[in-house]
Amino acid sequence: MTERILVLGGDGYLGWPTAMHLSGRGARVGVVDNMSKRAWERELGVEPLIAIASLTERIAAWKEVSGASIELFEGDLTEADFVHATLESFRPDTIIHYGEQPSAPYSMIDVHHAAFTQSNNVVGNLNVIFAMRDLVPDSHLVKLGTMGEYGTPDIDIEEGYLKVDHNGRSHTFLYPKTPGSMYHLSKVHDSHNIHFACRVWGLRATDLNQGVVYGIETEQTALDPRLATSFHYDEVFGTALNRFCVQAVAGEPITVYGKGGQTRGYLNIRDTLACVALAVDNPAGRGEMRVFNQFTETFTVLELAQRVRDAAAHLGIAANVIHADNPRFEAEEHYYNPKHSGLVELGLQPHLLSQELIDTMLQRIVEHRARIRPESLVMNVRWTPKLRSGAAAGL
Amino acid sequence: MTERILVLGGDGYLGWPTAMHLSGRGARVGVVDNMSKRAWERELGVEPLIAIASLTERIAAWKEVSGASIELFEGDLTEADFVHATLESFRPDTIIHYGEQPSAPYSMIDVHHAAFTQSNNVVGNLNVIFAMRDLVPDSHLVKLGTMGEYGTPDIDIEEGYLKVDHNGRSHTFLYPKTPGSMYHLSKVHDSHNIHFACRVWGLRATDLNQGVVYGIETEQTALDPRLATSFHYDEVFGTALNRFCVQAVAGEPITVYGKGGQTRGYLNIRDTLACVALAVDNPAGRGEMRVFNQFTETFTVLELAQRVRDAAAHLGIAANVIHADNPRFEAEEHYYNPKHSGLVELGLQPHLLSQELIDTMLQRIVEHRARIRPESLVMNVRWTPKLRSGAAAGL
Repeated sequence: MTERILVLGGDGYLGWPTAMHLSGRGARVGVVDNMSKRAWERELGVEPLIAIASLTERIAAWKEVSGASIELFEGDLTEADFVHATLESFRPDTIIHYGEQPSAPYSMIDVHHAAFTQSNNVVGNLNVIFAMRDLVPDSHLVKLGTMGEYGTPDIDIEEGYLKVDHNGRSHTFLYPKTPGSMYHLSKVHDSHNIHFACRVWGLRATDLNQGVVYGIETEQTALDPRLATSFHYDEVFGTALNRFCVQAVAGEPITVYGKGGQTRGYLNIRDTLACVALAVDNPAGRGEMRVFNQFTETFTVLELAQRVRDAAAHLGIAANVIHADNPRFEAEEHYYNPKHSGLVELGLQPHLLSQELIDTMLQRIVEHRARIRPESLVMNVRWTPKLRSGAAAGL
Repeated sequence: MTERILVLGGDGYLGWPTAMHLSGRGARVGVVDNMSKRAWERELGVEPLIAIASLTERIAAWKEVSGASIELFEGDLTEADFVHATLESFRPDTIIHYGEQPSAPYSMIDVHHAAFTQSNNVVGNLNVIFAMRDLVPDSHLVKLGTMGEYGTPDIDIEEGYLKVDHNGRSHTFLYPKTPGSMYHLSKVHDSHNIHFACRVWGLRATDLNQGVVYGIETEQTALDPRLATSFHYDEVFGTALNRFCVQAVAGEPITVYGKGGQTRGYLNIRDTLACVALAVDNPAGRGEMRVFNQFTETFTVLELAQRVRDAAAHLGIAANVIHADNPRFEAEEHYYNPKHSGLVELGLQPHLLSQELIDTMLQRIVEHRARIRPESLVMNVRWTPKLRSGAAAGL
């Protein structure tokens, strides 16, 4: 029987390419979205670099190009009845959950955006795990989290769990998290809730602590302009490498926050699809919350900026790297040794960051340079309205 | 200048006695409540053992008895504008936060109650910490959490933090939590959010991981019948010892869940007031989230039931202890060694559980026995609708 995969957040930067990738492999794919990302774009006055067709149009184009159908369930994950009805109708074998407010700066705008982010993400995820429990208890939840949940502790970051020896006894805990924004906190809350669902209800889940994703194209988005994914470069929704490439093409300085020593895990958007597919093909056991740290390389922010500057120079574009005031609250120099062997053991073959790849991204951005809105590159969301004397007790 | 203390959830079992206790010590006290506990009682068809006056009437009675005024702010903590206006008007030196949905069984009724509990508790707490940041950044948050956040790990439970040595390096983490219900999870989420507010904004907070509270009377509630606190004995809002005492008086069996080897920390309601007052008098530093494990003794559930049975016999009441199916998902035999020295070091002098104390509780319950509704002693909320084969991977 054809496997059924439901992609929550199927209109997003990663959700839409994932849906096509799995549909292209022969799965029966459904997508769930309430188009809220497009509403947040309008709220903030930003838009993706490439004009994006409506989800209905994208699905029709995919059918035209591939011959495969993707089913659309339009609705809000925070409505329990909608989630229940969707799972009852589609009866997925696997649920891939990207359907959350995905931006740390968005969550830090003010109290309303913080509370919205946490209640939206936490309640949506609760509705999913309860509906799984009641309707499809054997299905597998593949949940997108983030490496930012861990923060930057002074010891090695393991994949999800930490065995602690203490006063002559030992216990294995969920790896303790020290997240850096209201958004990252929402993902930590989700992980605790999912862990409960696995322990108590016997659900199966894979929690993917994903690094920062870069890239503009996948095998499927390249097939037709109407299949493009929503590539963001603005301060709120754009991620580091993507934003730096657009800054270079726009003739703006590449802005590194603070010293730029912040080290993070990164991965190519094609590897996101490969990792998610590996998790789908190798489901967690009943009662297991499996955790993978999903990234392929680590870089400092400054290294990344310099790589973009050098690749841009190779294409005849002169770009400067500048150090801007850090809007976030984070250590700018720190120990960082996160493990990430789980997905490699399942067979992941990474696409590492190369000058050729950055060249290709820059060329693709040049094609769309007329749409770049430089004002959205710096939007001044601040983690703290003004620094308080007692802050910075520790990260 | 008179210290100003705002008690969130000031209509509750602990909030109201706390407000009177601190008002009686000379503080200017404000209480915030939206009377939602009374709405949940109506929803479930349960009521406190002693008929409770309205909060307005309680405040008037307190004025009559003590001469002191308590200010009432009626509203919902999940409304950011209400919280902001309240802090702007009252400008508290200390905020004592009891204002959350406090019942584990209530949170496990179904998806709607789970999502409500988490969004209500998490969003209310977010509104409080943002308003503190923006209006009274030097004020001290005293937040009620629960020992149930920790679960029952196989190592000692420290007070809030755990130093981990790993691969030759070391780091001190927030103690990792393995909570046992959607309610307990909401408190873990709160703790992570407050930790962020202390680290990033420099707020000061004390997170009180409280054990199970028992008792019916405090120095102030005893002054006048209109000052009584809302003592619950039903399955959803009643806590272990309180419920057992009512079962004995009602001639019902004392129901121990499962084997009864579940060990928990307990404390007298008078010690709750003493602990909170100690935290108020000794505020955390700027940027510090201080954690206390707030209980005075540990007992197994079976021990507690046997003590109630023996005290009842002493009063001529014959009661049986029976083992009922455990509606919860929890280890019924486990290691348990939680530290609790922080409050003792600040000067706490515990009221330990004695036969005299149980006698006094039983006598007080006998006075109100006509109001006992035996049907609310067992309400059949289940942690899992039916046990799944893969469950119980670990607690």
